[in-house]
Amino acid sequence: MTGTRSWWGWGLAEDALSDEECVAMAAALPGTPARPRPVPDVSELALPTVRVSPPGSLAGVVSSAPDVRAGHTFGKAYRDVVRALRGEVATAPDLVAFPRNEADVVDLLDWAGGAGVAVVPYGGGSSVVGGVEYRGDAHAGVLSLDLSGLDRVLEVDPVSRAARIQAGARGPVLEDQLRPRGYTLRHFPQSFEHSTLGGWLATRSGGHYATLYTHIDEFVESMRVVTPVGVNESWRLPGSGAGPSPDRLFLGSEGILGVITEAWMRVQDRPIHKASAAVLFGDFGAAVDAVRAVSQSALYPTNCRLLDPGEAAFSGAADGTSSVLVLGFESAVAPVEDRLAQAVGIAASHGGVPQESRGAVGAWRSAFLRMPYRRDGLARMSVIVETFETACTWDRAVGLIDAVRAELHPVIEKITGRPGVINCRFTHVYPDGPAPYFTVVATGRPGSEVAVYDEIKAAASEILVRHRATCTHHHAVGRDHRPGYDRQRPEPFAAALRAAKSALDPAGVLNPGVLID
Amino acid sequence: MTGTRSWWGWGLAEDALSDEECVAMAAALPGTPARPRPVPDVSELALPTVRVSPPGSLAGVVSSAPDVRAGHTFGKAYRDVVRALRGEVATAPDLVAFPRNEADVVDLLDWAGGAGVAVVPYGGGSSVVGGVEYRGDAHAGVLSLDLSGLDRVLEVDPVSRAARIQAGARGPVLEDQLRPRGYTLRHFPQSFEHSTLGGWLATRSGGHYATLYTHIDEFVESMRVVTPVGVNESWRLPGSGAGPSPDRLFLGSEGILGVITEAWMRVQDRPIHKASAAVLFGDFGAAVDAVRAVSQSALYPTNCRLLDPGEAAFSGAADGTSSVLVLGFESAVAPVEDRLAQAVGIAASHGGVPQESRGAVGAWRSAFLRMPYRRDGLARMSVIVETFETACTWDRAVGLIDAVRAELHPVIEKITGRPGVINCRFTHVYPDGPAPYFTVVATGRPGSEVAVYDEIKAAASEILVRHRATCTHHHAVGRDHRPGYDRQRPEPFAAALRAAKSALDPAGVLNPGVLID
Repeated sequence: MTGTRSWWGWGLAEDALSDEECVAMAAALPGTPARPRPVPDVSELALPTVRVSPPGSLAGVVSSAPDVRAGHTFGKAYRDVVRALRGEVATAPDLVAFPRNEADVVDLLDWAGGAGVAVVPYGGGSSVVGGVEYRGDAHAGVLSLDLSGLDRVLEVDPVSRAARIQAGARGPVLEDQLRPRGYTLRHFPQSFEHSTLGGWLATRSGGHYATLYTHIDEFVESMRVVTPVGVNESWRLPGSGAGPSPDRLFLGSEGILGVITEAWMRVQDRPIHKASAAVLFGDFGAAVDAVRAVSQSALYPTNCRLLDPGEAAFSGAADGTSSVLVLGFESAVAPVEDRLAQAVGIAASHGGVPQESRGAVGAWRSAFLRMPYRRDGLARMSVIVETFETACTWDRAVGLIDAVRAELHPVIEKITGRPGVINCRFTHVYPDGPAPYFTVVATGRPGSEVAVYDEIKAAASEILVRHRATCTHHHAVGRDHRPGYDRQRPEPFAAALRAAKSALDPAGVLNPGVLID
Repeated sequence: MTGTRSWWGWGLAEDALSDEECVAMAAALPGTPARPRPVPDVSELALPTVRVSPPGSLAGVVSSAPDVRAGHTFGKAYRDVVRALRGEVATAPDLVAFPRNEADVVDLLDWAGGAGVAVVPYGGGSSVVGGVEYRGDAHAGVLSLDLSGLDRVLEVDPVSRAARIQAGARGPVLEDQLRPRGYTLRHFPQSFEHSTLGGWLATRSGGHYATLYTHIDEFVESMRVVTPVGVNESWRLPGSGAGPSPDRLFLGSEGILGVITEAWMRVQDRPIHKASAAVLFGDFGAAVDAVRAVSQSALYPTNCRLLDPGEAAFSGAADGTSSVLVLGFESAVAPVEDRLAQAVGIAASHGGVPQESRGAVGAWRSAFLRMPYRRDGLARMSVIVETFETACTWDRAVGLIDAVRAELHPVIEKITGRPGVINCRFTHVYPDGPAPYFTVVATGRPGSEVAVYDEIKAAASEILVRHRATCTHHHAVGRDHRPGYDRQRPEPFAAALRAAKSALDPAGVLNPGVLID
């Protein structure tokens, strides 16, 4: 990474918006302050006193430096960014560990278990669901376990097309190591630059691709997980029907069952054939029908992203009157123009109007990667920006989207006194349903941002639960999505998960408060 | 089902081989008896005394009829068939229940838990791994829970292309209900006619198709599972990143955590475009390389089945000097000849010689469905037939197959005094490895069949463990694969599974001895 990781906001400090850019971006929004909230100097933060110290043997891998502790206090949800800007770092970890190898991880868990110190596994720290922030006071101290030192591709098996990769490798770091061999993991979540393989596995991350092999789950051949009762290593297998999948218990376990240290991952040949197009729709319902038809066609587009009119305008892909469907195909083997033409044909048969693609696709991608930085800039202008994603079956999709718009707008207006913006896009589509992603923008008052955000989020969660739409499609549960998750998760499964947690983490030190109590 | 389910052997009694066919089939094998072992009359079996009786409210759904108990004593592994032919039904269940609805299942589990009666969930009874046979004496009695009464497609959602199907529906029964709506579940394991949706889900069944969506796991939208502590129902979701997948805990749980009563399954449009071809290889290693290249091409053939020379000869697909690769493509949307040609081209580039396909494909399919009946006929002639399947990564595949041949032949010769036959085929292929399926044929002595079978199986299991190849790709673990599974399964995962089992089945009555103790 060339640059300095921002301690308070998304990504790199150098890539944050300038004060002028913040003001300009918020200019069109009524009621925003004249100047952005300043970013506090990390040296002036009032960090809590360190309560615990590691044994001498671990002193070399543990830090209690103020800037390191501050940077590991939160993830990167909107409410995290606002609290950081306010200097609210009372929940900072006592210590941050940087293990050099798996043995260090084992030793750290041994010590923490014995000392009653909570351990919060930390990959890239990009959680937007409160996944890396300790809350509560039931432990003697808190250790943030930063895996970033374990970032190597240890082995490549070119015959089976698989690679053994350490969990702390961020996206660009692992891709840089795979590229010379001609391979790619081809997993590109929005957080790609700032999140790690271990984080993707622990949260069942969704990649940038819209269909087929996009979830990290599908690329796992085997995993190594350090649990407090021993190392869990599954065999390298392309497929197996031997009991419930061991890996699937740890995929999505968000650090409550163990610390993922490495995995054998299925890699792919780098795609060389690419084609994309954009299709405009005057009617959103017709666009949904078109996307559904494409998703059920077995054509498997790599991109199949539907932007509603507001979202399309926000990203510069259209003028605000049309919905835009971005279609893309890629292959390492054969040209993809035929399949693109078939998909465009399906979209056209539902009333879509194909466009010259480059503008829309390029505009979208650039906006996509900048979006979190823009959110941080808006946060400094006391604008509330909440994004939440879900998934539901096609029969409920339009009803859900309509309900979010119809019910959330009055909530925003009631809380803030002004109308807000609600945009929607589909990030992933399956034969049986889409993953709608909502962006909510509202103007707040300095000081009230977190409260307003939490109120909007709670209302959104209620709507999702009522429609039996998942509380998260690819952002994980963490602590912030617990209200929805606790109602979604079947109770017998919760009992089984609690029992598994007790068996693997008898001292109850691993990421307390995440997923279950 | 038009016909009578065989109480002792595979499938329908009417489809079993005649005495003459048994003799003819074994004629080429040295040392086989002159006449097949007779099939005992079910009315003359020495069934154990019934030890328990259900409460009056459940009397209407419970049977203790001798033929029903006899038919529910075993699954359909080779060793089960031989024991049935010998009349060894000492492990017959005391009772067989035929619940009419989910409430019956709940009541049966309530009674069994309180009375300490073991419950063995039973779908089509086609287990080949001892999955439906109680062994031991730690329970007051044994209840076989036969779900065959729950065989309806309850609901179809044409928008999301999903269907709610009861767990007791056998393959043809559910397909008959989906066909008029234009859909298919398109899951065709070899046991298709005689196994059920619930059995497929509980064992992570593999379908007939070689790549992409072939495992039943992938078609699950949501499941209902009756556990002793409550009903576990997951939401209908096309995708979700909310914690570890609840469904994945029950998929492959083989009845130890609960009884699956129904599931929302993703269905598909019926394919209308089909094309297939066969490619011959003089060299097995070259054929493996060709299959690997096809599996890594992202062409996703529906069939990609490699038969070694012996297997090809056995099924009539070739003369015994060549390996045969059967390639097939299907689509509901677009012609597939292009993709077939691409795959055949890849195979040809590895030295394969394309053939006129119809003969090879047709011969294979017919032999495939008759194979279990032929096995039963051979069992009556005291011939030992063992099939075992596995999966491993490509880098280990040829070494594993060589080891099975090199090490198992001497074992067979040592035990039986005669050389045996070992054939291999790939049933499924993944980008990172194949699923080799072995057929072992040896001549035994009347009375020694099970002992010889068990000895061969134990030797095969040792070879798989040493190569870290899975103990089962799609036949499940049951009780027969425990020696391999216990070494394959990571110990922390085993601890988690035991804890989950204790939480969901506190009385320990569900399918005891399967997967874990």
